[in-house]
This record gives sequence, structure tokens and C-alpha cells, in this order.
Amino acid sequence: MTYCVAIAVDKGLVFASDSRTNAGVDHISVYPKMNTFEIPGRAYFVLCSAGNLATTQAVVKAIQRDLDHEVSESLATCRDMSDAARYIGTLSVRHRLYYQKELEQKATFDASFLLGGQVRGESPDLMMIYPEGNYITYSPYSPYMQLGETKYGKPILDRVIKCATSLEDAAKCALVSLDSTMRSNLSVAPPIDLLILEKDAFEPAHRWQLKLNSPYYASLRKRWGEGLLDLFNNLPAFDWEKE
Amino acid sequence: MTYCVAIAVDKGLVFASDSRTNAGVDHISVYPKMNTFEIPGRAYFVLCSAGNLATTQAVVKAIQRDLDHEVSESLATCRDMSDAARYIGTLSVRHRLYYQKELEQKATFDASFLLGGQVRGESPDLMMIYPEGNYITYSPYSPYMQLGETKYGKPILDRVIKCATSLEDAAKCALVSLDSTMRSNLSVAPPIDLLILEKDAFEPAHRWQLKLNSPYYASLRKRWGEGLLDLFNNLPAFDWEKE
Repeated sequence: MTYCVAIAVDKGLVFASDSRTNAGVDHISVYPKMNTFEIPGRAYFVLCSAGNLATTQAVVKAIQRDLDHEVSESLATCRDMSDAARYIGTLSVRHRLYYQKELEQKATFDASFLLGGQVRGESPDLMMIYPEGNYITYSPYSPYMQLGETKYGKPILDRVIKCATSLEDAAKCALVSLDSTMRSNLSVAPPIDLLILEKDAFEPAHRWQLKLNSPYYASLRKRWGEGLLDLFNNLPAFDWEKE
Repeated sequence: MTYCVAIAVDKGLVFASDSRTNAGVDHISVYPKMNTFEIPGRAYFVLCSAGNLATTQAVVKAIQRDLDHEVSESLATCRDMSDAARYIGTLSVRHRLYYQKELEQKATFDASFLLGGQVRGESPDLMMIYPEGNYITYSPYSPYMQLGETKYGKPILDRVIKCATSLEDAAKCALVSLDSTMRSNLSVAPPIDLLILEKDAFEPAHRWQLKLNSPYYASLRKRWGEGLLDLFNNLPAFDWEKE
């Protein structure tokens, strides 16, 4: 399993993803799921992936190869984020169809992606690319997108995230959302990749890989966990408890 | 969809369930999912249901008819909770197989149940009955069970519920768990049925139907929502925020 979340606020974009992949519960590995592509002076892209690991790795390699070989269509030639999403979706579908149709197999090789970033002259944007290659863009009414094991970590996003939320608060909320998910699903696990991309910056303001014992993350987890229990213990008493 | 949660602590059992059923998003109804059966002086059973509404209603009616007609196997003749779970699981499978096999249809008519209660002379018990009729019993290591849309409301249960938790705290935790679920999934909705069954009492200590504007539930939702935002706003600052 996987859990990735990307948040689009007025000041820019925040991305967070776990690092556990598994093929069955007895074959667990660590693979970061966040990749970045910089087109110096022109664009910056962050790609988080979920699904078939062979497909997501192949897509990431194809993107880098197209950039290195300066082919006619690549992230360097995309006019905007929509172009980039269509390009990556096409790579993903072509890879899947090779194994499904050309090699005539019934297995699924589906992959999904969160793509965020900015092309110079355009606004930052955030989209989710489906296994079928098409994509949707985030809505200002719920300015975040999730991949993978999305439910455990959704309530806190729904309560906190708005367009006006600061990049720092969006990053903290992503970390809390990942913490709730990791506690409830063993197939989502650290290290956590966290990246903050300010609007019009074209390079990350901050980028870390956090482990459970990384000082900041450990203190956030402790404060959140203890605070939740305090809050719970101060909920209003039932009528008959007051008697 | 449905969300039911049942909690087994040292002092007794707590049950909570929502009331929304839907066949597609354009056909939504209100059906409470919690039924109780009292065998005066001998036993008390609480049954929460999820899945095919025709099946769950048929099972509840069959349980009541067997009690009314004093047939040879009914909740009144069960020696313990395991007997009761096997009896209800059998009713459920027989109903399903009638429509699937006898009437030769491919549709699924699956239903799942949470069964809790106590037979005099035995300890209280809590089990989940699968559509296949078999069942599992709760574990003291995670003394709660859920049906339906379980994920949104699971993190708070994992943080709070232990065997030593009071019945009142277990009931509050169930309400918070339902609140998180209702905020994230429109197919889970009030009124909420809440029932507290103390050990060795054989009748509920408390039973309500709560709406969003019921005074206690409204104050709990408000305190929890505001408290979460306060807690979030007091999470530790990132290093660069302190500069």
C-alpha cells in the first residue's frame, strides 16, 4: 500500500508520501514514492506515485530519459501543467498496454500519480492522473488530493485545510494525516518524504526525509497524541455523570 | 453504506450505529441498524447490521418470530453468545442462499452483523458475524469491532479504547468515531443509536437516539472540532518558523 497527499494552498504546494511497498505482507520494501524534476529557469515538477511499482518506476525512468535525450515531447517542452499531466498519463498507459496487450497478459499493471508543480508564466497546479491516463485537477473547495490508503488520514485534512492555510500548517497537517494512517495500516510506513514548493520559486523551499525518531516528527507525534487524549478527556460529561 | 462500532470494556459493552441506507446515491433512506432482544431474567442481545437491507431485516424478523413462537432453537435457547452467533449466522446464510441458489440469481445478498450481549452465568461477549455465517470474537488487545465504513473513525478508537476504559468514555469515543466518519462519508448519517449495556445488568443502562442538534451531541461535536483546531494550531513550529 501507499499513502501520498498533496495540498494546494494560495502560497504554494505541499507534498508528503510514505515509503513502504509490499507484494503481499511477506515482501515489504522501502521505496520513496516522491520524485522531482527541475527544468532550470522554466519549471519544477513533483510526482508522487501509487500502484504497480514496476509501472511507476518505468514512468519515472522514461520521464528522465526523455529529458536527458531532449526528445520532442518531454517535461521540458510542456507549456503548462495540463500538458505535463497528459504526457505522464500517456507514458503510464503505454507501459501498461505493452504488458497487457502486446504480451497478452491479464494481470493489472495500474499506476496512479499526483502531479504538482509550476511552469513559468502559469499558476502552480495539482492534479491526479488515473491509470487510464486521464486526470483531474484539485478544487479550491477541497484543496488537497490523496493516493492510496486515503481514509484514515482524511478527517484532519477536511477540518484544517483551506486555500488560505499557510504552507507550514499544510505541511504539519500532512504529517498528522500520515501519522494517523501509519498507526492504522501497517502497509503505510516511514520514512516520510515532505516537500514544500512556494509559488513562483521553481525549487523547493524545504525538503526532508523524516523518520519516526527524527526530532521534529517525534515531537509533533507526541504533542498530537497527548493532545488528542487531553482533548478526549475533557469532552462534555453525560448528564448522569454529573449526578 | 453503514457505520457501526461496538466496544467491549471491563465494565460492559457499548454500541453505536448510524441510520442511513442507500441504494445508489439517489435513493437514501433512514433505517436504524441497531436491534435489541431481551430474554427476561436470562439474556440481553444487541445486534447491529450492515449490508443488504432486505437480508438484515429478514434476519431480525426471523429472530423475533422464533422467539414469539418459542421454537426449539432461538435466542431464548442459546446457552451462550457463541450459540447465539452461530444461530444468527445460520439465519443469514439461509436467507441469502434462498435468493442465490433456490431462485438461481447471481446478485449478492450479503449481510454482516455485530452481536454483543450477555447470557446469565456467562461473561458479556462481542462478535462479528460474516456473510458466510461464521464469526470472530473481539480481542482484549483491540477491544472494539466495526462494520461498514470503518476507516475514517478508526484512528481515535486505536488511541483511546482499552479494556480499562470506562463505559462513558467508550460511549464518547464511539460518538467521536461516528462524527469523523459522517464528516467524510455522506452515506453515513444520523440519527445515531447509542446503547450502554453494563456487565451483569441484562438491560441497557442508557439508550438514546441522537440527532446532530441533540444538545449533548452538538456540544460534544463543537468541543471536539474546536479542540482539534486548537491542538493543531499549537503543534511544534518548524525550525525555520522560529527564525
